[in-house]
Amino acid sequence: MISKEEFTKLHSEISPFIHRTPVLTSALLNKLAETEIFFKCENFQKMGAFKMRGATAAILALSEKERAKGVVTHSSGNFAQAVSLSAKSLGIPAYIVMPSSAPQVKKDAVKTYGGQITECEPNLKAREAAAEKIQKETGAIFLHPSNDLNVIYGQGTAAKELIEDFPGLDMIITPVGGGGLIAGTALAVNFYTENCKTIGAEPFKFDDAYRSLESGRIEFNETNNTIADGLKTNLGDKNFPIIKDKVSEIIRVEEDEIIAAMKFIWERMKIVVEPSSAVAFAAVLREKDKFRGKKVGIIISGGNVDLSNLPF
Amino acid sequence: MISKEEFTKLHSEISPFIHRTPVLTSALLNKLAETEIFFKCENFQKMGAFKMRGATAAILALSEKERAKGVVTHSSGNFAQAVSLSAKSLGIPAYIVMPSSAPQVKKDAVKTYGGQITECEPNLKAREAAAEKIQKETGAIFLHPSNDLNVIYGQGTAAKELIEDFPGLDMIITPVGGGGLIAGTALAVNFYTENCKTIGAEPFKFDDAYRSLESGRIEFNETNNTIADGLKTNLGDKNFPIIKDKVSEIIRVEEDEIIAAMKFIWERMKIVVEPSSAVAFAAVLREKDKFRGKKVGIIISGGNVDLSNLPF
Repeated sequence: MISKEEFTKLHSEISPFIHRTPVLTSALLNKLAETEIFFKCENFQKMGAFKMRGATAAILALSEKERAKGVVTHSSGNFAQAVSLSAKSLGIPAYIVMPSSAPQVKKDAVKTYGGQITECEPNLKAREAAAEKIQKETGAIFLHPSNDLNVIYGQGTAAKELIEDFPGLDMIITPVGGGGLIAGTALAVNFYTENCKTIGAEPFKFDDAYRSLESGRIEFNETNNTIADGLKTNLGDKNFPIIKDKVSEIIRVEEDEIIAAMKFIWERMKIVVEPSSAVAFAAVLREKDKFRGKKVGIIISGGNVDLSNLPF
Repeated sequence: MISKEEFTKLHSEISPFIHRTPVLTSALLNKLAETEIFFKCENFQKMGAFKMRGATAAILALSEKERAKGVVTHSSGNFAQAVSLSAKSLGIPAYIVMPSSAPQVKKDAVKTYGGQITECEPNLKAREAAAEKIQKETGAIFLHPSNDLNVIYGQGTAAKELIEDFPGLDMIITPVGGGGLIAGTALAVNFYTENCKTIGAEPFKFDDAYRSLESGRIEFNETNNTIADGLKTNLGDKNFPIIKDKVSEIIRVEEDEIIAAMKFIWERMKIVVEPSSAVAFAAVLREKDKFRGKKVGIIISGGNVDLSNLPF
């Protein structure tokens, strides 16, 4: 496991390639939630999400020789864009396997950022096979979006910046998808605060992390119909031990609570956030008693949404 | 006319009651526009628009005795909310005449900010009559949303802050509705810069300011069907002389250009802006040759939109 000094060094190494995103507050949302909230706006991050941090950290962790051959991942979402853009910044090839069913707008975004797309059948087996084929042919290194220690460390740098800007937070809440963001956040909280807690938030309809903390082993989901599409992935063997050890609890929220929280943020703060990001704010609104009078940090994970398909 | 020293003093007097809004930049939008743009984000202003500045300045300009009786305005838009909130901040009554046809969400916003609503028939005559009745009954002072010198000075403080944060701008562009924002901006540009120009932007479908600059007298519109609903008002005898004297030009844009510019801002900058605000960015995209290689300030006028009725 990384030391505090190494984590600090990693943050300074990725800093030239990422934005130091602003922390926003809203008197209206504070009043609504009856607490004091500090929103770390990773929707303003390069390519629109925190994933830029982890992708950059993972590529920088490679040797010069490894880097020269490029990186490969399979993703239809933010990580594909993050790997494409950070690879471009560092001058190496990025091979992105995307399901043929991915929306054209996402394919275009990856192309804009310089990623080389290979299309495959829309299932995990086909995605893995296509990525493996590219690895063999090119020697490119495979990057996992959440179950990779360097990715986890990179994602944690958002919380480090939030803590630096606003010391004295009582808790930091993140949405939980594949587990990279919350594991990295928990590490940063552990390194840079005394008494701050790390709390996760996820939809009732995709509550594998909640159940995993309960049972002590990685659980999976049988349904797949939450609006928070960025969270539809499972924990992994690299991030789960960190989560089990350092995350206080996972709060689950209903779909209508996610949509209401998202609408509040758009209407009152005038910022564009993904449904996944609204899950963390929805958790604060749902369990007001737990947060009343506290200083609460929330990681707004991203702002990549399809404007022609909004839930309100 | 106000002096530079008085303008500076007015800004410091309203400052405790307004936000100093951030200035955002976007590498992607700069690339798209082939220039360097500095967005002054008045969508993050209190109540979501620059109108908070003018309303506060106008109320502060009243004597203690005048203020005690309150203020009255007729508006169905941002100025109603601005007067309500600034009156509330200063502890005086605000009487707001709204057409009965105004959307419930706008009435609710005014109520939230403490305004006392009087409903009237949805036409200008009825609005003016209702406001006059309230003036007579209560002694409240009438505030005009754009054709009032103190309102104009207040609106100009957004440009003053932008110039302070980013000296060396070649031009500042604002949308043109009733003329308060652009007149105030032109004054600030005149006071605090050497060679900066003030440029207006308005829809072809509501181009009274363009025609007024051409003819040298206040012109009106025969049609009323632009998406930029905040701009559907005419210049007045207080702001037109300033505009005629100090505004370099007005650029007109098509409706589809406004919608495309608005979508670019939402998608790439992840902020919620009104169609009226997008008019200024649309002008830069339409006339790229004019702005190439320049440093361009844009006043993002506000972010109060109906999320259930977006044009994309």
